[in-house]
Amino acid sequence: MKDYTQIFLGTAFTSKSPTEVQILKNNLFFVNADGMIDKIIAPEHLEYQNLVNSYKGKENFHQLEDHQYFLPGFVDLHVHAPQWAQAGTALDIPLNDWLNTYTFPIESKFSDLDFAKKVYNDVVSTLLANGTTTVLYFATVHKEASILLAQICAEKGQRGLVGKVVMDNPEENPDFYRDTDTNTALSDTEEFILAVKELGETYKQGVYPVVTPRFIPSCTDEALQGLGNLAAKYNTHIQSHCSESDWEHKYVQDRFQKNDAFALNDFGLLSDKSVMAHCNFISDEDADLFVETGTAIAHCPISNAYFANSVIPIAHFHSKGVEIGLGTDISGGFSPSLYDNIKQSVISSRMLEDGVNTKLPADERGVPGSRVTVNEAFYLATVGGGDSLSLPIGRLAENYIWDVQVIDTTNLPLYDSNDDLQDAFQKMIYLIRPENIREVWVQGEKVHSRG
Amino acid sequence: MKDYTQIFLGTAFTSKSPTEVQILKNNLFFVNADGMIDKIIAPEHLEYQNLVNSYKGKENFHQLEDHQYFLPGFVDLHVHAPQWAQAGTALDIPLNDWLNTYTFPIESKFSDLDFAKKVYNDVVSTLLANGTTTVLYFATVHKEASILLAQICAEKGQRGLVGKVVMDNPEENPDFYRDTDTNTALSDTEEFILAVKELGETYKQGVYPVVTPRFIPSCTDEALQGLGNLAAKYNTHIQSHCSESDWEHKYVQDRFQKNDAFALNDFGLLSDKSVMAHCNFISDEDADLFVETGTAIAHCPISNAYFANSVIPIAHFHSKGVEIGLGTDISGGFSPSLYDNIKQSVISSRMLEDGVNTKLPADERGVPGSRVTVNEAFYLATVGGGDSLSLPIGRLAENYIWDVQVIDTTNLPLYDSNDDLQDAFQKMIYLIRPENIREVWVQGEKVHSRG
Ligand SMILES: [Zn+2]
Ligand SMILES: [Zn+2]
Repeated sequence: MKDYTQIFLGTAFTSKSPTEVQILKNNLFFVNADGMIDKIIAPEHLEYQNLVNSYKGKENFHQLEDHQYFLPGFVDLHVHAPQWAQAGTALDIPLNDWLNTYTFPIESKFSDLDFAKKVYNDVVSTLLANGTTTVLYFATVHKEASILLAQICAEKGQRGLVGKVVMDNPEENPDFYRDTDTNTALSDTEEFILAVKELGETYKQGVYPVVTPRFIPSCTDEALQGLGNLAAKYNTHIQSHCSESDWEHKYVQDRFQKNDAFALNDFGLLSDKSVMAHCNFISDEDADLFVETGTAIAHCPISNAYFANSVIPIAHFHSKGVEIGLGTDISGGFSPSLYDNIKQSVISSRMLEDGVNTKLPADERGVPGSRVTVNEAFYLATVGGGDSLSLPIGRLAENYIWDVQVIDTTNLPLYDSNDDLQDAFQKMIYLIRPENIREVWVQGEKVHSRG
Repeated sequence: MKDYTQIFLGTAFTSKSPTEVQILKNNLFFVNADGMIDKIIAPEHLEYQNLVNSYKGKENFHQLEDHQYFLPGFVDLHVHAPQWAQAGTALDIPLNDWLNTYTFPIESKFSDLDFAKKVYNDVVSTLLANGTTTVLYFATVHKEASILLAQICAEKGQRGLVGKVVMDNPEENPDFYRDTDTNTALSDTEEFILAVKELGETYKQGVYPVVTPRFIPSCTDEALQGLGNLAAKYNTHIQSHCSESDWEHKYVQDRFQKNDAFALNDFGLLSDKSVMAHCNFISDEDADLFVETGTAIAHCPISNAYFANSVIPIAHFHSKGVEIGLGTDISGGFSPSLYDNIKQSVISSRMLEDGVNTKLPADERGVPGSRVTVNEAFYLATVGGGDSLSLPIGRLAENYIWDVQVIDTTNLPLYDSNDDLQDAFQKMIYLIRPENIREVWVQGEKVHSRG
């Protein structure tokens, strides 16, 4: 055998397909110096017992305790890092009030690097403690604070993809919080890209710059085109919001006589490395364009309940072949946990399938065929996120990165040690709290542990 | 001043009305030997500072630390205690399969008192750790195990209202799990009532027997009538399921040519001490009958997403004056936390208000006026639950019982100590995890603490 950096022994759950979870029972995982899974060996392998005996007791051999399991680290495709400062606040008021009274004033405070440091340290640590190993972040308009967020991800060992937000349209943004002008927005973005690219080279797990128009209404045509050009020039990831709500969808149709998807594509903003948040109101033609360009949807089920006026038909778009992952959308979504979003994704899909209005007869109430199972939602949080970002993450399989959560189930209701492991998996997904997440590993390095 | 058993100093949140949360900032709470709040004194009171000085340092004086707050203990109006053993399992399969393949086999195992003891100890402790101080429980058909559940609540200090389940109808229940016959079902229930009444007298917080027909389909007419008679004879609480799903609602209409509510009332099963789970499909006339009889709804938003084919219009029924509280419905609902159900209640109501189907125009999609705010959902989990059970619980007010959660917010994003406390309250409700619940008190006794 080669000389491996780390060897892990335990039972792991990983998606085999969108509907099936594979159980790797008591497998050996060999992780190399780059943090990649080089080899996985099952108990049936002839050399298995010899290998276990030879590694046992060594410092780089990690055997799970009873009642512990490996899950892939989660991929969160949509977080507004500065909004962690207001998570859970004022979600009962309309979106416009929420943005103007709470969100924009909070985001504008990130010109203060001390405040930024406090909040960003906290949100990165909180997401790691919730099992999230890769995050696609919106920062704020401020170049320096956005670089600071990338720096904090780098140092804490999280795989952060970070965007300096562009919002230069004076008509749709408040005077106290927007880019000075279009040129500054673009030159700040270019400097940001260069700084984060350089930073990313010195950290094992990588941090990445992301071209980030807030959403079409926030940006002038010139800014959108300039950002498309920058993304192409530097081959970066791209993120924005797309067809989120009735209001926003209609705004874009009025301005461009087309849907967000086609408008974004005209500016060069749809690519294999593009992730668009929400997308509740995209049409089938929009979805086809997503498939064609490799653009992914960041599905944010908790946030959608407050601000998207609907439930996105995830099962339908998934069956059309669109790449889909999950996002917390802190703080349109209050929760830093993708477990919470997995659950809400299942719940919301049931509401779409069965409908909500008791006054309607059952056969007119819902949209049949809309349900997303817990296995599928887990797939979105792991494989779906990895595919969306075009990174080898989200699976516990050879040639994937060792991004892992170690789950302790001691306080969960698993009474029968002969419990079917598929049932145990579902109990875990539904009942895991941060206190059950004992270790988090990113790219073969332990980045979080607790009690 | 009288000689009080316990004095508490800290900031508390409690509902002032269904929509308003009252903040009692740095108040003194005087609790007597019966565990009742005898007096509350605010800092404006002339004697406040003298009182603080005179109690400070004494053993029965409890001052909250910085970043700690009092909340009322939660009231969970619907828990199937045996189903904790399968929480989170197989929620993707249809109700009938779920009942026959998972639920009934699990419940039938509670003839084994050792198994019952393990699961019941665990579910009672888990609910306490989640801040739930009063619980309305379904046990199983087994008399002995049901008494054991009441015993465990009594000893752990939880206010348990426990029902031995009646399901005697051979046509709708499996042979391996039902009451032997109608007479045995009724005599077991009567013996159960007497045993739990006796038990309740020796524990400060009280435990109560509850007359519990599983739901109409499970029971013969004779059993339903006999249970109504027993409830009247012993003045007990009553619980069942009511108009939960399309199937169940129609079953009762076919059998009695009326809705569940009127059928239950005919058997003497609606009273001021009745709590009916779900009630998604009750009509306005049914709701009026609830108001007239004092019957309450146990709203179980997480469970409803899986098994109720709809979102119950809570805002509408609340405005009609129906008493409503929240239930986890373990394990139709996977979560043991009323925090999770508060959040889902808000989210579900938004989906009812805005609608779910993106293919419909906005003005045909939802049911306007359906939203439940986080303040209202908190009211349901506290005051609503107390009113539903006709017990003086759910408020931090004079002549209410000292049932309290001590919340530590150190790891929550409350950056500004001048944060508006109403905003802080919302952050807490959205972000509290069991690890934030540092102490739980029931009837003036500390029954849970951690960290
Ligand atoms: Zn967003
Ligand atoms: Zn139930």
